Amino acid sequence: MSAVSLLGEIADIGRDRPRGGYSRHAFDGREAELRAWFVERAVRSGLEVETDRNGNLWAWWGRPGPGSVVTDSHLDSVPGGGAFDGPLGVTCALDAVKSLRDSEFRPGRPIAVVVFMEEEGGRFGVPCLGSRLLTGSLAADRARALRDPEGVSPAEAAARAGLNPDQFGRDDIALSKVGTFVELHVEQGRGLIDLGSPIAVGSTVTEHGRWRFSFIGQGNHAGATPMSDRRDPMLPAASLIAAARRTAARVDGARATVGRLVPRPGGTNVIASSVDVWLDARVAGHNRTRPVVEEIAAAVRSAAGEEGCEVTVTEEAYTGAVAFDAGLRGQLNGVLGGVPELPTGAGHDAGILAAHVPSGMLYVRNPTGISHAPEEFAEDADVERGAEALAEVLRDLST
Amino acid sequence: MSAVSLLGEIADIGRDRPRGGYSRHAFDGREAELRAWFVERAVRSGLEVETDRNGNLWAWWGRPGPGSVVTDSHLDSVPGGGAFDGPLGVTCALDAVKSLRDSEFRPGRPIAVVVFMEEEGGRFGVPCLGSRLLTGSLAADRARALRDPEGVSPAEAAARAGLNPDQFGRDDIALSKVGTFVELHVEQGRGLIDLGSPIAVGSTVTEHGRWRFSFIGQGNHAGATPMSDRRDPMLPAASLIAAARRTAARVDGARATVGRLVPRPGGTNVIASSVDVWLDARVAGHNRTRPVVEEIAAAVRSAAGEEGCEVTVTEEAYTGAVAFDAGLRGQLNGVLGGVPELPTGAGHDAGILAAHVPSGMLYVRNPTGISHAPEEFAEDADVERGAEALAEVLRDLST
Repeated sequence: MSAVSLLGEIADIGRDRPRGGYSRHAFDGREAELRAWFVERAVRSGLEVETDRNGNLWAWWGRPGPGSVVTDSHLDSVPGGGAFDGPLGVTCALDAVKSLRDSEFRPGRPIAVVVFMEEEGGRFGVPCLGSRLLTGSLAADRARALRDPEGVSPAEAAARAGLNPDQFGRDDIALSKVGTFVELHVEQGRGLIDLGSPIAVGSTVTEHGRWRFSFIGQGNHAGATPMSDRRDPMLPAASLIAAARRTAARVDGARATVGRLVPRPGGTNVIASSVDVWLDARVAGHNRTRPVVEEIAAAVRSAAGEEGCEVTVTEEAYTGAVAFDAGLRGQLNGVLGGVPELPTGAGHDAGILAAHVPSGMLYVRNPTGISHAPEEFAEDADVERGAEALAEVLRDLST
Repeated sequence: MSAVSLLGEIADIGRDRPRGGYSRHAFDGREAELRAWFVERAVRSGLEVETDRNGNLWAWWGRPGPGSVVTDSHLDSVPGGGAFDGPLGVTCALDAVKSLRDSEFRPGRPIAVVVFMEEEGGRFGVPCLGSRLLTGSLAADRARALRDPEGVSPAEAAARAGLNPDQFGRDDIALSKVGTFVELHVEQGRGLIDLGSPIAVGSTVTEHGRWRFSFIGQGNHAGATPMSDRRDPMLPAASLIAAARRTAARVDGARATVGRLVPRPGGTNVIASSVDVWLDARVAGHNRTRPVVEEIAAAVRSAAGEEGCEVTVTEEAYTGAVAFDAGLRGQLNGVLGGVPELPTGAGHDAGILAAHVPSGMLYVRNPTGISHAPEEFAEDADVERGAEALAEVLRDLST
């Protein structure tokens, strides 16, 4: 049961033929199948699995209690995502725990493997939904008000998947058991290619968030409406794409992306009546992201005004900059014999946990440098090195 | 059985709550329900209904044969469309034929009411699909190659709806029966508001078409990918929206619209790997539309090149300018006692038939001037006047 073979077991679950890659979203059929697979695999390894109040799965080696060493990842994906973002961490964790159990080692503290719910926010819009609920960084009421594109709430989706979502919310009991938290993840850029290392220890997570821009104009006939009579929300929507690029290219350390845009009604021969556009923005440093978004929004409001359209801007998610625990970073690096440290522009559950318990991350080299896309990759040898590294870390932390 | 009451009978079929208005697309459950309703209503009025080779319904008063007087419309809508575009023509036709049958009048020629398949192109992308197939202006092979967003072809959709699509293609037998062709339609602009008339006779249909721009870039992680490493197809897609507006605003008589844009994979935290954008373009005059599209495409190709993206442009549909038959226009105006003549920027099945048989149109005032949107409207009195006018026209033409 190696991480490589475990990845092979789930390689056919949730493929997205039209988009390429995988689409596995919280509580849909594919992610539910992956959860069932995880439970079966964990139980077969002698772990005891429980589902917490927020739909996260915990597989325990040893009796759950304070001071536990917890490693995690997720099984959901972005739409059309790669095979490694999430599953690499889960499979390396199962591999690492299995190899430790098969050895003579007996941990001095409990060890748990967690599968977090909706890490990507691909279904309900808020990333790290499971860990935000667990830690209380997102209120249960706000989570209950979320909807997927078909209008289904996380609680409804969880209930349909056979879970009891009545208890959504900050879970102090679960949180109190976590002594140290480590997440292993495929790298999402070119850092380890350039450094020539299969493994790195995470240093920081860039401040980041998501904003929804809702433009309202006047739907009408594409052929019968003179250009001068139009209030077409696609015009300011296009200006958002251009302003995001223009602003992020100018501000040092800034990244701004529009990857999701939904015109309504969405007909070829119809001037849209409204358009929703999502802006993903991240800026290195502290408290620099919201000002960049505000600068983009100012340009967009001006464009909307010129077109006679309304625009509302909603912050759907925001996470401040995270620096992983310095002591834990040093410990990880000591165990692994001096691997590079790497910052990331990508958000992770470990970044959410970092506000509550000593948390850290390990990255595994991605030879394409591409992530959230079918080209995301990790060589088998690097996957094996990742699983070994995680086993060494778990051994050290739980001794 | 007035046109107003008939509109009331179908007012609840195919409402689109998320978008507002109606979404009724060829052979989906809602349009199929409307077809069944039409058949029932026509049979109850003593008409005989047949489905032609291309999925169009024909309801006959009198034995089908050459020289028939044919009036038509459609029951499909754009996504989130209004209640009148299509159904107004169908209900006024049923009303007009019923009132003529209830009178002493007996026509000297057969009269038919046709419901055309997929007039809006809302499902398979080509507007006037049923009339284009009937007249051979679209080859059956091209129609068979069309797909809806779920990959279903028109033939598959027709078969699932219980029709036999094996015979798709130019239908000379059906066409040979049509002596004169008249379509009644809700107006899609403000012409009749300004003219203070409930009714107009159609003069011309603007040259128009649809082009799909497919942009291909490199999908990647929105947070981990530096701005300078991106090949983001949303950038040239945004430039298409801006170029369409800029060009159409400058060229006299031009209209250009982007109402449909689909990024893949469509995730908030994902740089899109590809984007499909549809351009609807129409220019008054002859052979002026394609040059305008080419001018827009040149700007877009330049933007795509700057971003390292590929773009392909596909003409999905094109219809040259139509001037309705001058003799028929005069005859309609004589019957109706001097109503205004009105050009339109909207395409219609009558514009397709005009290349084959004397064809004309009647418009009914739309007090909002808005169409292809929930605000589309016609006052009851104007609907009644439309049905009366159509009855007068059918009486005159079939005598």
